[in-house]
Amino acid sequence: MKKHLKNSAKRVGLPPGTLLHVGELRAAQVSVRQLEYGELDCREQWLDLSELKSCYNPMAKDRVNWLHIAGLHGVSAVEEIGACFNLHPLVLEDILNTGQRPKLDDYGDYIFLVVKVIYRPAAGEATTEQISIVLGENFVLSFQETDYDLFAPVRERIKSGKGRIRRLGADYLAYSLLDTIVDNYFVILEEMGERLELWEDRLIIDPDRDILAEVYSLKTEMLFLRKAIWPLREVVNALERGESRLFRDTTLLYLRDVYDHIIQVIDTVETYRDMVAGMLDIYLSSVSHKLNEVMKVLTIISTIFIPLTFLAGVYGMNFKNMPELEWRWGYALFWAVIIIAGLAMVRYFRIKKWM
Amino acid sequence: MKKHLKNSAKRVGLPPGTLLHVGELRAAQVSVRQLEYGELDCREQWLDLSELKSCYNPMAKDRVNWLHIAGLHGVSAVEEIGACFNLHPLVLEDILNTGQRPKLDDYGDYIFLVVKVIYRPAAGEATTEQISIVLGENFVLSFQETDYDLFAPVRERIKSGKGRIRRLGADYLAYSLLDTIVDNYFVILEEMGERLELWEDRLIIDPDRDILAEVYSLKTEMLFLRKAIWPLREVVNALERGESRLFRDTTLLYLRDVYDHIIQVIDTVETYRDMVAGMLDIYLSSVSHKLNEVMKVLTIISTIFIPLTFLAGVYGMNFKNMPELEWRWGYALFWAVIIIAGLAMVRYFRIKKWM
Amino acid sequence: MKKHLKNSAKRVGLPPGTLLHVGELRAAQVSVRQLEYGELDCREQWLDLSELKSCYNPMAKDRVNWLHIAGLHGVSAVEEIGACFNLHPLVLEDILNTGQRPKLDDYGDYIFLVVKVIYRPAAGEATTEQISIVLGENFVLSFQETDYDLFAPVRERIKSGKGRIRRLGADYLAYSLLDTIVDNYFVILEEMGERLELWEDRLIIDPDRDILAEVYSLKTEMLFLRKAIWPLREVVNALERGESRLFRDTTLLYLRDVYDHIIQVIDTVETYRDMVAGMLDIYLSSVSHKLNEVMKVLTIISTIFIPLTFLAGVYGMNFKNMPELEWRWGYALFWAVIIIAGLAMVRYFRIKKWM
Amino acid sequence: MKKHLKNSAKRVGLPPGTLLHVGELRAAQVSVRQLEYGELDCREQWLDLSELKSCYNPMAKDRVNWLHIAGLHGVSAVEEIGACFNLHPLVLEDILNTGQRPKLDDYGDYIFLVVKVIYRPAAGEATTEQISIVLGENFVLSFQETDYDLFAPVRERIKSGKGRIRRLGADYLAYSLLDTIVDNYFVILEEMGERLELWEDRLIIDPDRDILAEVYSLKTEMLFLRKAIWPLREVVNALERGESRLFRDTTLLYLRDVYDHIIQVIDTVETYRDMVAGMLDIYLSSVSHKLNEVMKVLTIISTIFIPLTFLAGVYGMNFKNMPELEWRWGYALFWAVIIIAGLAMVRYFRIKKWM
Amino acid sequence: MKKHLKNSAKRVGLPPGTLLHVGELRAAQVSVRQLEYGELDCREQWLDLSELKSCYNPMAKDRVNWLHIAGLHGVSAVEEIGACFNLHPLVLEDILNTGQRPKLDDYGDYIFLVVKVIYRPAAGEATTEQISIVLGENFVLSFQETDYDLFAPVRERIKSGKGRIRRLGADYLAYSLLDTIVDNYFVILEEMGERLELWEDRLIIDPDRDILAEVYSLKTEMLFLRKAIWPLREVVNALERGESRLFRDTTLLYLRDVYDHIIQVIDTVETYRDMVAGMLDIYLSSVSHKLNEVMKVLTIISTIFIPLTFLAGVYGMNFKNMPELEWRWGYALFWAVIIIAGLAMVRYFRIKKWM
Repeated sequence: MKKHLKNSAKRVGLPPGTLLHVGELRAAQVSVRQLEYGELDCREQWLDLSELKSCYNPMAKDRVNWLHIAGLHGVSAVEEIGACFNLHPLVLEDILNTGQRPKLDDYGDYIFLVVKVIYRPAAGEATTEQISIVLGENFVLSFQETDYDLFAPVRERIKSGKGRIRRLGADYLAYSLLDTIVDNYFVILEEMGERLELWEDRLIIDPDRDILAEVYSLKTEMLFLRKAIWPLREVVNALERGESRLFRDTTLLYLRDVYDHIIQVIDTVETYRDMVAGMLDIYLSSVSHKLNEVMKVLTIISTIFIPLTFLAGVYGMNFKNMPELEWRWGYALFWAVIIIAGLAMVRYFRIKKWM
Repeated sequence: MKKHLKNSAKRVGLPPGTLLHVGELRAAQVSVRQLEYGELDCREQWLDLSELKSCYNPMAKDRVNWLHIAGLHGVSAVEEIGACFNLHPLVLEDILNTGQRPKLDDYGDYIFLVVKVIYRPAAGEATTEQISIVLGENFVLSFQETDYDLFAPVRERIKSGKGRIRRLGADYLAYSLLDTIVDNYFVILEEMGERLELWEDRLIIDPDRDILAEVYSLKTEMLFLRKAIWPLREVVNALERGESRLFRDTTLLYLRDVYDHIIQVIDTVETYRDMVAGMLDIYLSSVSHKLNEVMKVLTIISTIFIPLTFLAGVYGMNFKNMPELEWRWGYALFWAVIIIAGLAMVRYFRIKKWM
Repeated sequence: MKKHLKNSAKRVGLPPGTLLHVGELRAAQVSVRQLEYGELDCREQWLDLSELKSCYNPMAKDRVNWLHIAGLHGVSAVEEIGACFNLHPLVLEDILNTGQRPKLDDYGDYIFLVVKVIYRPAAGEATTEQISIVLGENFVLSFQETDYDLFAPVRERIKSGKGRIRRLGADYLAYSLLDTIVDNYFVILEEMGERLELWEDRLIIDPDRDILAEVYSLKTEMLFLRKAIWPLREVVNALERGESRLFRDTTLLYLRDVYDHIIQVIDTVETYRDMVAGMLDIYLSSVSHKLNEVMKVLTIISTIFIPLTFLAGVYGMNFKNMPELEWRWGYALFWAVIIIAGLAMVRYFRIKKWM
Repeated sequence: MKKHLKNSAKRVGLPPGTLLHVGELRAAQVSVRQLEYGELDCREQWLDLSELKSCYNPMAKDRVNWLHIAGLHGVSAVEEIGACFNLHPLVLEDILNTGQRPKLDDYGDYIFLVVKVIYRPAAGEATTEQISIVLGENFVLSFQETDYDLFAPVRERIKSGKGRIRRLGADYLAYSLLDTIVDNYFVILEEMGERLELWEDRLIIDPDRDILAEVYSLKTEMLFLRKAIWPLREVVNALERGESRLFRDTTLLYLRDVYDHIIQVIDTVETYRDMVAGMLDIYLSSVSHKLNEVMKVLTIISTIFIPLTFLAGVYGMNFKNMPELEWRWGYALFWAVIIIAGLAMVRYFRIKKWM
Repeated sequence: MKKHLKNSAKRVGLPPGTLLHVGELRAAQVSVRQLEYGELDCREQWLDLSELKSCYNPMAKDRVNWLHIAGLHGVSAVEEIGACFNLHPLVLEDILNTGQRPKLDDYGDYIFLVVKVIYRPAAGEATTEQISIVLGENFVLSFQETDYDLFAPVRERIKSGKGRIRRLGADYLAYSLLDTIVDNYFVILEEMGERLELWEDRLIIDPDRDILAEVYSLKTEMLFLRKAIWPLREVVNALERGESRLFRDTTLLYLRDVYDHIIQVIDTVETYRDMVAGMLDIYLSSVSHKLNEVMKVLTIISTIFIPLTFLAGVYGMNFKNMPELEWRWGYALFWAVIIIAGLAMVRYFRIKKWM
């Protein structure tokens, strides 16, 4: 979460619009995959860097041209694509800077979206990366840091020709990408929900200290989720209100659906935050309560035996003239006093509800 | 509360509009009950799936057609009704997905409402389910997860012809359903209020640890209520402002009444939240205070007897040459010292207000 | 505060507009007092239920007709008045339901206000009740739960003909009732302020546990005040902005004055809330601090005497061959060691600032 | 802070507009000082009550007439001035009621401002009072509770003819009074800042209990400042937006400057609040930490010596048949066991990082 | 952070517009550096105070005149520049008062910006100062407290003629200065992030008390950052919305970029605040937990040995008639009782999960 800051600092003093990859190296090599389709057919290919110049035909209004670029350290690839699709230098700079906040910039001919995705690959850790999407009239560019195939389901749907997707143009494709990204949040939320449920039960049965580390880690993850999803909400809200002419009315209905999903994610994150806060309160109260229990035991034992020990110490003294020691029933009397005193104290603690 | 997330995750990768029941199986079988009424008569019947196609006559403008569907796993029933009433695929998808947030979508010819209800059946636990309502010009569709007969009072009123309900059309019926749902919140709030009062008294008399589990459970329930009722407020507010032409002016007055009730529920939930937070504070302070009490007892006892025990120990030593042991009044002097020291310490604690 | 919920639940399933008294029985009998006045004269009388039908003459535009109804269990009285002044069924329902939130409903010909009042009778407890006010062009209806004569000062002013009140019409009368209600809040706030000041002083001199119960009770009372006064603010704000034509411009200036008073009440309640929260913090810190003090005493005593007691115990052992016991200055040496060790420890605690 | 409430309650039941001084008696006698100036000359005089009637000449459009009234218990003086300048009864009532919240009322011909000032006289305590300002086209009335000469610098500037003040009319004079009032907040804030810095240092070196009382007193003072300055912000904001025609464009620039100062005061108060909250957190953590330290010492000492004392007690027993007592190296062995056990425990505590 | 308040208080009583340097003396001497450039050439020189009068040629519309003044105690230099560029007295007053809040004042012909910068010189401490920027049609004035060469990269870019900067006029220069200032925030944030990460790890491995001072210092630094950056957000937002005609459309795109950066800084600061709060919670819980551990050890040891010591004390008594002492297996029996009692208690603690 803090990594991008280390890199943003690298840029200090550089003129704006300088292309420089800011972020970790997360993909082995840069790959560009093109999917070009119309209502009837669909062509998929991997593009070489040298082919990028001629990859776009602005005249083919009825076809959609989807370029997916994985790996952002290839500054020259991004530059070529920028030249080919006529993108503003600030857009290219933002694509390469992986420390962006989700946002929407409308450049008239195209809109530029930055989104954060969080997903869990089949085997592995939850991963987060930045996805940049450029939507034009008949093209969609998507830029991803790693080469994890996040958008495979969308590509499959296009290739198989199932559903509306082949008919509904570039804006519907952009919506589909957004929808896939938001759907991945639910997977992570579901995991969190399961962890919360688990700890909720442990908290009641046996609150132990591990809960602290877990709570801290859950809280930090939720901070990340909030930071990613709150600005996304504004982005999708702006789109859904129809502020850009690139989204047609039929697609707006679907964007509203994505918007509802985002609100649901936010709602759930907020609920989880409240629950975690509540769990921490309960844990702290439990710790206090346990301390009380421990101290009561200590106090009861000490209060009963310390005075008795004193009495035993007294009759262990070696004074010459201690009449009690000579009494016939001295020892028996001692025990009688001890037992009565002990019982009196037990009674006292019972009244005080400490036992 | 977390269940629906587990299911929402199931949808990842599916194209939007795919009909898939997301949620638990909560009703034994799908049942469709039709109530068709005009000002003068009223006809009730259970519909078979095969009859769904012909259940709607859009021409009968002066009659109201209310279809109540219990059990959402019957995807085909929902599909048939969707086709018959010409509903958008996203509406059908949302009806089947029980993890929705309360919302209002206006599709022009009809409006689509998602609401959460919480009720307590005659014998049993508080139950929550999602109710979807579709209101058209002369029809109301209501979809419920279980087959609990929530809307019985409304149906009875229609059948008996009492009140305004037979005269006032489909929008008044939709209002009546909403009113019933909101009324059920009050029952739950009343129970909460009683539990709060009970614990409030216990807290002052004898704060014990059970309060923690109770506080956590009350807090979680309130989180749920808030999550259900806050969006409902926006929904009813939008309706009440007359944004949809399907609600006539006479009904708007009644919606304002429902809106007032919702605000009252929200107010009460917020008050209860503040009270629970206050109770937790008081509990924590009580625990601290009790710890203090316990520690004072321990400290008083220890401070009095530990030095005395030391003194007794000293005169229990076996040194050859201990003149005090030989003194005639040695033992008496010992007791004198002990008693004076003891009294001095008691006095000291009195001054310090520990006793 | 929770009572009204128990009663609201009673309404579940009833059709809207059903007249049913929801609330406790708080007045022995229903009484209706009429004050009818113009600029020059004023007539006061108690009305029988049978006279209610003819109590209103809508033609007497230049006279004000004030009906004050005390005791809400008289459903039929409310019904008669409703019929006579032509009120909407929902208004009558709301008048009878004492669990309302302060609100303003504008019905065109008249406006309907629900307000909460809190007052302390000459001898007795702070009492809260719901006042409903209906203001028409030349009439004011006021409904009160108990028969406490809250509006006596207003009535006296009318009868004595002092001030502007006889000249300024029904809206000025409604304003005067509101003003009286808001003034009563100040009395309660003053009491709270005195209690706060008292506890503030005690907190610094000698924080004890009673403060907890007091803090909880103050907090709960403030919750009630907030719940009553925040919506009232919106109500008066709406009136003061001149949204209703029933209030004339000259009266609006006076409403602005009431509005200022309400803001002042809110401000004070918020300040008190912050002060109470601060007091609780201080109390908790004091408890922690005291615990520290107690523990220091215990630790100092234990740390000094426990090792010394051990040493005394050693020389109380009965081993055959203990050379120290035979030494001539053994016992003196023992005391020397004890005293030096004791002083060293006292010094150590001085350095650690525990003594 | 609570005093005015006690007095506001006095008003309950009085008709609005009744002139009654609400507040303490804070000035020995009522004094009225008139400063009348144009661009070229300036005349200052003390007015008797009898002269008040003729003190104002509305025709002298190019001259400014500033009346400063110190001491509010002179109800008749306020009444005379009200009559002379034709002020609304509610204005006079508000001037005399010192429990007002800062506010702005625009009466068309004049505007009425209520402001709270806080200042520290050369020798003495921080004092707070209410200043009421009435600004007309060519006059300014300022009402103050005490006779402290708060506006001396402004008067000096007018008399010496320095700066713009003689040329710029009544609105600039009102601005100058406001500016003087806001400047006085900075003096108080500076003091608070110094106290905070002092305690910040003490907190780190040696947190003791006095900090609690100080924190509580700082918090209460800040509550007062907030209560005085937040509404003032709205007042000046409304003026600065040019809502009143009495302020000319050239003066608006200066009002923006005052507005910036108010924002700065608010900012600083909020920062201080956060710092105080942070200090309390640190103090509480310190107390907990110290308790831990104390308890560790107690536990170490007890854990080492209590078992050893037990062992010494065992060999002090008088059983007939205790073979160890007869051993030749019994006593030496005892010491060996004691020392080894002691060292083992010290090591254990080292590993646990308690020592 | 509090320093400026001490100085603001100095101004009390002075007429507005009086030029007076408020702040510390932070630069050895006042220096004025002029950079005058057009698209083709660029001239840099240091100006003497006597040359300030003639430094500006308003007619050279196509050239940019950048004056950078370091050191604010030179009141006369600021006055000369003010006269030469025709600035309002309030602008000059604000430039000299280093306790300003970031703000934007639009004076029509020029706009006046106050900004806070925080930077870390190559070797040294984080430093904060106030930068005032005045932007006119063809000039930029920048005022800085110290002589640290903050804007060196911008000057270099102008002199080398690289990038757009020579072509894009005075507004682009002002943007470049803002961009440099905001970039410096990232450097500080990166450092904070590293400190946070460091402490996060320490917190989990070994929470010790140093964390408190660190948390307090981090919190205070964040308070400062927030105070500097939140108002800056509003300033840049107002500029970016194109409210001033001095910023051309091409530059607005770049301002949006700066705005995005500011939002990112705010976001990160908020996240850090939440993380610090979370760390404090965890630390406090750890302290409680550790106290619990310590107390358990003390209680176990005391509970086991105190009763046993009592028993040993009993048989150390010197009563004449103690039959147990005479028993043959008395001593062995004593040990048997001791061991069994000890084991029973250990078992009890195991069950209670204290061991």
